[in-house]
Amino acid sequence: MQLSARNQLEGKVAGVELGAVMANVKIEITEPGVITAVITKESAEKLGLSEGDDVTAIIKSTEVIVGK
Amino acid sequence: MQLSARNQLEGKVAGVELGAVMANVKIEITEPGVITAVITKESAEKLGLSEGDDVTAIIKSTEVIVGK
Amino acid sequence: MQLSARNQLEGKVAGVELGAVMANVKIEITEPGVITAVITKESAEKLGLSEGDDVTAIIKSTEVIVGK
Amino acid sequence: MQLSARNQLEGKVAGVELGAVMANVKIEITEPGVITAVITKESAEKLGLSEGDDVTAIIKSTEVIVGK
Amino acid sequence: MQLSARNQLEGKVAGVELGAVMANVKIEITEPGVITAVITKESAEKLGLSEGDDVTAIIKSTEVIVGK
Amino acid sequence: MQLSARNQLEGKVAGVELGAVMANVKIEITEPGVITAVITKESAEKLGLSEGDDVTAIIKSTEVIVGK
Repeated sequence: MQLSARNQLEGKVAGVELGAVMANVKIEITEPGVITAVITKESAEKLGLSEGDDVTAIIKSTEVIVGK
Repeated sequence: MQLSARNQLEGKVAGVELGAVMANVKIEITEPGVITAVITKESAEKLGLSEGDDVTAIIKSTEVIVGK
Repeated sequence: MQLSARNQLEGKVAGVELGAVMANVKIEITEPGVITAVITKESAEKLGLSEGDDVTAIIKSTEVIVGK
Repeated sequence: MQLSARNQLEGKVAGVELGAVMANVKIEITEPGVITAVITKESAEKLGLSEGDDVTAIIKSTEVIVGK
Repeated sequence: MQLSARNQLEGKVAGVELGAVMANVKIEITEPGVITAVITKESAEKLGLSEGDDVTAIIKSTEVIVGK
Repeated sequence: MQLSARNQLEGKVAGVELGAVMANVKIEITEPGVITAVITKESAEKLGLSEGDDVTAIIKSTEVIVGK
């Protein structure tokens, strides 16, 4: 399946921290460093996310703010 | 001003395409390539975005989907 | 690739309307009817969306508001 | 009050799971199944969400990603 | 219908600018000024938005970034 | 740094409630009252948010729904 989301950054899971409902996932990309994703705990578990996994951070372009 | 948004990727504007209401901005980051941001035409004009500008792509962590 | 996005509704493209920067895509799902997605014109073209295509409407759970 | 949000899916609450700050709400719609909404615990409590409630899942069209 | 969205700011439409797919709506609130909403042209027309209309700007709390 | 986000409401932190992963931040603006922001606990801590702090609530215009 191809996605309409323009931004798909490949990286590796560098850490997963589970809360009761949400999970904070750190994704290491080559450059410029680390992407933080907050997803449901349910998703983190269904994907079986753990350190070192190859993942993609997917971001719809309407969600990006530009600072200058 | 510091922002709560965890993801702030530095890059250079590689292109701006204006529509009637929205604008599509391409931001070149070192790696892994190009970020697409869709912002209002109004913002693109107020920031005076043009090719080569140093900008930051800002993304709140709740907006990131993880693919594995 | 599996996605962390909890909501993935399968349907068929029922219409695509292109603007200069954005595109309005109508997706017919069995029930309860029609989903509207606004994506970049660029994505609509890269995916080659046209009426009758089988597509999936993907929605992160943090984006859903509940009305009661 | 009418909303600009194009996507309003009617369903019934099938489950509510409260965390410290957020809540995971399952909404059963006729087809194609279950919508997951993550809202604040505060909202879940103010709306008094409980199983069997008639609710509407409201989604702005800019939040929908298309997969093909 | 009550909404889970925590932020509901009442104001008056101060301007509507239609593009091909999107519309830029200015909403004057008492304080601190003007809220900009970008919605589909379709929604702007279905709601029949015009200057002076009483409207509510609705914002889910997960969409708010904090700057300090 | 100037931001493309059109909506920047100045206020004071009126309360911070930390969960395991997320934090609920109340921001008092002059009018029409209180803005709720849900951000990561990590951000709330990095910004050192506490009652009485001057902050700005930043909202991209594509995230605003209009009710009429």
